[in-house]
Amino acid sequence: MAHPHDFTEDDLASVLTWSAVRAARRLERILTEVLAAFDLTPVQFGVLVHLAVRPSMTQAALAREVHVRPQSMDPLLAGLEARGLVARAGDRGRGRPTPVTLSDAGLALLRAAWGPATATNDLAGFGVDAAEGEALNRALLRIATADPPRGDPAAAHG
Amino acid sequence: MAHPHDFTEDDLASVLTWSAVRAARRLERILTEVLAAFDLTPVQFGVLVHLAVRPSMTQAALAREVHVRPQSMDPLLAGLEARGLVARAGDRGRGRPTPVTLSDAGLALLRAAWGPATATNDLAGFGVDAAEGEALNRALLRIATADPPRGDPAAAHG
Repeated sequence: MAHPHDFTEDDLASVLTWSAVRAARRLERILTEVLAAFDLTPVQFGVLVHLAVRPSMTQAALAREVHVRPQSMDPLLAGLEARGLVARAGDRGRGRPTPVTLSDAGLALLRAAWGPATATNDLAGFGVDAAEGEALNRALLRIATADPPRGDPAAAHG
Repeated sequence: MAHPHDFTEDDLASVLTWSAVRAARRLERILTEVLAAFDLTPVQFGVLVHLAVRPSMTQAALAREVHVRPQSMDPLLAGLEARGLVARAGDRGRGRPTPVTLSDAGLALLRAAWGPATATNDLAGFGVDAAEGEALNRALLRIATADPPRGDPAAAHG
């Protein structure tokens, strides 16, 4: 060793946000593989699910829910619209909220992808059993959906 | 509603991999903000931590640990090397493993960033208390570090 190291394996394991980034890259890759058969990315899938549950959302609200920058939502939705999977209301004046709705084709594609997507919940291959997976999911959802804490830069995306 | 929806809020919450992607985007943004003061991205930070703990790693092993494609490691390490934070062994013939080590400057920067980075573990603002955070971290680490299950595309990155 060229110089003394005072960092240990415990340190490596101790930064929760970094653990989350590492684990999520792996899980996103799995979801990406499964959804590729439906020509959907995880974020596109997320948009369809949100619109299936909440029939009409503004583009800004959707961006917040799927954690995409508002300026990235426009090309993302344009792509889904070109495929006939979502529809955006006609009056899209600058600064006006743009309501987005799911089309019948979008709902049909979501139904087809649903089984394979939910099958990715099985993390037994990672040594995470069903009960742990549920607890993990609950904590992740709280993080994903909580109102932004003070200082969270995500707040600036509202 | 233009057509019947049979997806519910429970469905929206039920895809663990999608919850992980959403939560991680938020957590990565927090870590990104904190590390920006040290001119480090989360992945660069991860590289420094791994090298601090395991003094000499090959470029391929590092790529696996930080969940970056092997071909993306080269520019990433070149950037850190140009700043004098890491060093790569001289003989970098095609196909040979490239050992990477942390420099004293890299260790010093990591030490400076360590406090602010670990402070991001506090997820009380998201309604996740310390005990839940530890359980969450353990599950995420198992996912991040487990041997690839069969069919995990990450296995192809070895």
